[in-house]
Amino acid sequence: MYKLYYSPGSCALASHIALEEAGADYSAVRLDFKANQQQSPDYLKINPKGRVPALVTDKGIITENPAILAFIAQTFPKAKLAPLDDPFAFAQVQSFNSYLCATVHVAHAHKGRGPRWATQESSFADMKGMVPKSMAACFELIEKNMLRGPWVMGEQYTICDPYLYTIELWLEGDGVDLKNLPKVADHMKRMAERPAVKKVMGEQQARAA
Amino acid sequence: MYKLYYSPGSCALASHIALEEAGADYSAVRLDFKANQQQSPDYLKINPKGRVPALVTDKGIITENPAILAFIAQTFPKAKLAPLDDPFAFAQVQSFNSYLCATVHVAHAHKGRGPRWATQESSFADMKGMVPKSMAACFELIEKNMLRGPWVMGEQYTICDPYLYTIELWLEGDGVDLKNLPKVADHMKRMAERPAVKKVMGEQQARAA
Repeated sequence: MYKLYYSPGSCALASHIALEEAGADYSAVRLDFKANQQQSPDYLKINPKGRVPALVTDKGIITENPAILAFIAQTFPKAKLAPLDDPFAFAQVQSFNSYLCATVHVAHAHKGRGPRWATQESSFADMKGMVPKSMAACFELIEKNMLRGPWVMGEQYTICDPYLYTIELWLEGDGVDLKNLPKVADHMKRMAERPAVKKVMGEQQARAA
Repeated sequence: MYKLYYSPGSCALASHIALEEAGADYSAVRLDFKANQQQSPDYLKINPKGRVPALVTDKGIITENPAILAFIAQTFPKAKLAPLDDPFAFAQVQSFNSYLCATVHVAHAHKGRGPRWATQESSFADMKGMVPKSMAACFELIEKNMLRGPWVMGEQYTICDPYLYTIELWLEGDGVDLKNLPKVADHMKRMAERPAVKKVMGEQQARAA
């Protein structure tokens, strides 16, 4: 029995979908970021970074999407969520997820998380203004060089797909036009149709309401 | 035979040290960032992101430190650079490396890479001014909650160690005082004494001269 801590709209959606796709026995615990629950003393004992996702397992706690996603793929091999027997192919999966984690998510975060990296309102506004351009540049690269289609790694659905979908859901709010990103738009549509995705989205939205 | 593209002083040092520790048959190719070689048409064919590290293998190219590091650990199991048979322990390694990649390296990058996220000189100065504080906060967390000692994961040296060492080398320039970080300071000293580290540092410095 796993327990996933998430916040609606956050990147924890990627790990949430992956747990569902894997057929894992898990519960999802919602944190209210508006009430700053991720910084509560109780939650900081679970994740001292004060972020989501955090996955509680019977061996201990795992944080950071790329680590949780690879853990789910390795723990539920029958779900075939990563090429576990081919280190090069596994590295391609990990490379994609690292790019999402360290470049794309970071570009997006400059819209609302300016105080992580600066102190002045003028800087926050400047950062926010750059997001449509930086996110568009990231997704041009994804469209042209990374997303093989129909899934990120080609014919096989992997842990890259829920992570990409999570960030695709931010694009409209980030001012990125999908018209120039046909493969990305197709990926979003395919993801939205998956039963696991429908179930998780319904659960996160119902609890958030 | 592997080929690693790096730039002296960059995060590619982590993958470079790991290749050496693994006993891999590899060559290291230096890119001159001051001459913007990472954006040359030839290099963009290798890594369209225009960044380092990039590892050329006989199956294709791998980018992003966390992906390359796990690939090296999996490809050279005798070097015991990661707990390959324990998905939870492997996830702890990956979680640490994700934190370095997506939070710590990103905090550092705000010193000199402001144009990635903003447009105004005042914003760049503001970001730069925040680096000592944000990097100190990251390393307080590493000191207190992550670095088990003597190595990141405890008694066993892993792919977390060369990655942490790479970023430790940035601390002085980032204005972070090691006096409050005794475990980190001890880790740096232990790393500097390793033959693989001495060899790689000598090679990178000789070529950079």
